[in-house]
Amino acid sequence: MKPVIVVHGGAGRIFKEREEGCRAGVVRAALQGYTVLKQGGSAIDAVEEAVRSMEDDPHFNAGCGSVLNEKGEVEMDAIIMDGKNLNSGAVSAVKCIANPIKLARLVMEKTKHMLLTDHGAHLFAQTMGIPEVPGEKLITQRSRERWKKNLEPDSNPEEFQKDLGTVGAVAIDSEGNVACATSTGGLSNKLIGRVGDTACIGSGGYADNHSGATSTTGHGESIMKVVLARLILYHMEQGMSPEVAADTALDYMKDTSRGFGGCYCCQQAGEWAARFLHQADVLGYCRG
Amino acid sequence: MKPVIVVHGGAGRIFKEREEGCRAGVVRAALQGYTVLKQGGSAIDAVEEAVRSMEDDPHFNAGCGSVLNEKGEVEMDAIIMDGKNLNSGAVSAVKCIANPIKLARLVMEKTKHMLLTDHGAHLFAQTMGIPEVPGEKLITQRSRERWKKNLEPDSNPEEFQKDLGTVGAVAIDSEGNVACATSTGGLSNKLIGRVGDTACIGSGGYADNHSGATSTTGHGESIMKVVLARLILYHMEQGMSPEVAADTALDYMKDTSRGFGGCYCCQQAGEWAARFLHQADVLGYCRG
Repeated sequence: MKPVIVVHGGAGRIFKEREEGCRAGVVRAALQGYTVLKQGGSAIDAVEEAVRSMEDDPHFNAGCGSVLNEKGEVEMDAIIMDGKNLNSGAVSAVKCIANPIKLARLVMEKTKHMLLTDHGAHLFAQTMGIPEVPGEKLITQRSRERWKKNLEPDSNPEEFQKDLGTVGAVAIDSEGNVACATSTGGLSNKLIGRVGDTACIGSGGYADNHSGATSTTGHGESIMKVVLARLILYHMEQGMSPEVAADTALDYMKDTSRGFGGCYCCQQAGEWAARFLHQADVLGYCRG
Repeated sequence: MKPVIVVHGGAGRIFKEREEGCRAGVVRAALQGYTVLKQGGSAIDAVEEAVRSMEDDPHFNAGCGSVLNEKGEVEMDAIIMDGKNLNSGAVSAVKCIANPIKLARLVMEKTKHMLLTDHGAHLFAQTMGIPEVPGEKLITQRSRERWKKNLEPDSNPEEFQKDLGTVGAVAIDSEGNVACATSTGGLSNKLIGRVGDTACIGSGGYADNHSGATSTTGHGESIMKVVLARLILYHMEQGMSPEVAADTALDYMKDTSRGFGGCYCCQQAGEWAARFLHQADVLGYCRG
């Protein structure tokens, strides 16, 4: 089977000054993930590598470059899921961790659990020998400025939010296994401890060889409301193509909430789709 | 429409010494929730009241009586969802809170978010004027003994776990609105910061007037793996009765993991089902 990886850098519009960096970042991430696949690596290794690449890239709202919470700190969520066996791992509200997606993978592989949060996730990171980075290292000037602007009395954080979003990837490897990974800094100026769709299995991502893999991006609370990733795969299980399934689920989300968002899905046969409401997205893909 | 409430006190076997207290507790909770419905209250008020009643009852693994984490502390998750508008609120890994279900309801009503975790959830509780209770107040002698036994080298925490489970309720009010609520102390001797199915929308519960309401109980990681609550309602949307939908979803869960569990679901027309794998459950219901 020819391997495929589809990588996204968040739903919503892209401001001009970010466009070049974002496009280069998703292409780089797609190529890095695809290199894993070409060398015979698994889908789950590939999506982890692609998301790790975007977490390290300050252009995206994940890892370094994440938006800040109400207190001016980075707090991140991430999930990874293997469609071969439905195993998954996730972390929520983690700080001072360079690559939440790697920590999520360790939750999946080294614990009996699927989601570790906040303080406990940090204790686990210590046990795994993952060093904490100074919180400042994850904060870009852009994030700080946005946070300050959002504190102004006439600010419109929701409007601002629309140029940012979760990063993620879906992949199919040469053995026909699918996987997804999603990582985010969440919503600008969110309450401390707010967990969005990304850490919740079925909302921020889902992968099952029998149907496909999906990673979602956009307004987390709207995505959670309809458990978007799982909904798309239900539609695919009923025989819809990835494109029709994604559009049907996104239309339903639009009807039930005012949230914006998008999704990226693939199925074992190699077919994939990237669909979104309202705004364009930054997207990269590689196909064998 | 005649109101209905179905209340559960956890999947799994019930040890003899707990049987009487558990049965009395679910009946009391069902009656308290039903009183809300009979007085013209909403389904969401009724499920909150029923779950609050079981959180206050030391016989159940929620609120006072919760199992302890690896450090010997109570850490709880809870979710509430209104089928009328798909609004929901949840908290994860909260300590020193007598009624996590009330905090979840406040997340739903007083924030733009749907899930607050750990430290941030406590800050929010303070803002809402919810007093912290001493951690010891939530710990029963039984929980402490179980925790200690699980620390012994030849212990079998998973076997022990089977006599405990999440508590929850589903209801239909006189206007035909459905709602669900679920609350839990999680898994005995879990890692600090472990979040289970209860806090994850679609896994621990889901409610939608167009299909129905579900609350789940059992081994959290197995429930999350299949996003159980949403899966049951998806089957009901396809025309299955609550009973057949629940059995189909639970059989699928059994096939994909070794976890035990159960679920409680109802639909707008008033039909309801309580189904479980392997073990009997404590269950109460009232119907107008």
